[in-house]
Amino acid sequence: MVVAGVHFLAEDPPDLVARKALRVNLSDLIAKGARPAIYLLAIALDARSDRAWLQAFAAGLAADQAEYGCVLAGGDTVRTPGPLAISITAIGEAAAGRIPRRSGARPGDAVFVSGAIGDAALGLALLKEEPLPRLAAADRAMLIGAYRLPRPPLALAPLLGRFATAAMDISDGLAGDLGLLCWASNVSAEVEAAAVPLSAAARRAVAAEPALLERSLTGGDDYQVLCTVPAETAPAFEAAAARAGTPVTRIGVIRPGSEGAIFRDAAGRPMRFAQASYTHL
Amino acid sequence: MVVAGVHFLAEDPPDLVARKALRVNLSDLIAKGARPAIYLLAIALDARSDRAWLQAFAAGLAADQAEYGCVLAGGDTVRTPGPLAISITAIGEAAAGRIPRRSGARPGDAVFVSGAIGDAALGLALLKEEPLPRLAAADRAMLIGAYRLPRPPLALAPLLGRFATAAMDISDGLAGDLGLLCWASNVSAEVEAAAVPLSAAARRAVAAEPALLERSLTGGDDYQVLCTVPAETAPAFEAAAARAGTPVTRIGVIRPGSEGAIFRDAAGRPMRFAQASYTHL
Repeated sequence: MVVAGVHFLAEDPPDLVARKALRVNLSDLIAKGARPAIYLLAIALDARSDRAWLQAFAAGLAADQAEYGCVLAGGDTVRTPGPLAISITAIGEAAAGRIPRRSGARPGDAVFVSGAIGDAALGLALLKEEPLPRLAAADRAMLIGAYRLPRPPLALAPLLGRFATAAMDISDGLAGDLGLLCWASNVSAEVEAAAVPLSAAARRAVAAEPALLERSLTGGDDYQVLCTVPAETAPAFEAAAARAGTPVTRIGVIRPGSEGAIFRDAAGRPMRFAQASYTHL
Repeated sequence: MVVAGVHFLAEDPPDLVARKALRVNLSDLIAKGARPAIYLLAIALDARSDRAWLQAFAAGLAADQAEYGCVLAGGDTVRTPGPLAISITAIGEAAAGRIPRRSGARPGDAVFVSGAIGDAALGLALLKEEPLPRLAAADRAMLIGAYRLPRPPLALAPLLGRFATAAMDISDGLAGDLGLLCWASNVSAEVEAAAVPLSAAARRAVAAEPALLERSLTGGDDYQVLCTVPAETAPAFEAAAARAGTPVTRIGVIRPGSEGAIFRDAAGRPMRFAQASYTHL
């Protein structure tokens, strides 16, 4: 469920509000190896939701139905005196017995992420007008775009069922979410921070202000896949993902123990994060 | 989706808020011949949702999971600066090819309803402190209870798949919902108002104030089943429903034509309703 003013900004473009509300759900399916099939939409409209807003909102849904191959199958529309709220339930299909849980990671497994990490967190910081290093207009636009329109990697879904011992989507920050995966699997993870894939724009931001690396690793809204794959099949997974057009990056390894997710800096020192994951409100 | 202050009152008992939010969804499944299986709950909590409120809310869900044989399978919890909002998606199972639509009613079919009609509408009027005839405390409590806790007839679900040509739940008032069914089926319906089953409390209210009959026929929140059954099998349907402990009442007949749902008074005159169905807000 997303609420205006909490999970998105009331003045965000309505087509992007719709697409993000849908994609955060599709992201969960994809990270579980499922292909999106149908979704149900409940929306509480506020006083600002006029015909133009709704038309743009519907156009956003239509675009993503085409892109992700799913259809609206029902739902509800109500009015609220409060902020606009959207609740989407997405239903997908996965091969029987091939749904990777959070709890399946085993010592020795390689840790992978899809896409680039942290763009959305930097984009949100820009939207909130936090003091960030001066960035080129194109970089700013890219980062804000990543916040407003996540890109869950649809083509990875069938590969996760084949290769992953554990998988989840990254919604509340890589560091915190990897910690949850470790907790559920009763293991630890060791990650080289330098191995975490950053976009060119994020790399430029971090180069200008090194503290932004922590923001990238702990900020939310990535909606990329975090998964673990046995070391033996890791190269095959990497190759298959590249062939599917959704490259994945090996960022670390699963270890025994209960230390959780440890990120090491270039000198091999464990990094300490002020807050491992992003909390709305 | 239900919103505090719109679909329920913020001071309503939290266990009943939970059960009603769930039951209005189960009602839709049951009226389509489906047995509830799982549900997903998204809830936006407001500042008043403290631990005690949540515990009572969860207890209500637990009670209805037992009563309706379904389980919570996922969802989301967020905070909202606005009124508390609850969105439930319920998923059920029906026999393949046996899901009665709204569009299947045929001239000659008998029109049935389950339960008693109008109690919830009168209960809501009492909660809103509308000027109603003086009613005994027990009648008041029963009518308010019917508004706060609808009773979708679970045992009817398998019978609808076997007998009904068309079915829907009555959520926005019998008159308006029967009009929708007629529209979808491209038929009309003729109903004897006197045949519509009223509870003893509703009958006493209508006896004291005849205008309340219209309120009963057009008010919302019944969450009973409205269905049509071929005349030949109508007696078997009635008998099977009675055996299942969920009696149904034959209230009219489907006719050709596009006049919609016509309710006739004791003198055979078509009744005119100020508003055929209830609209929230």
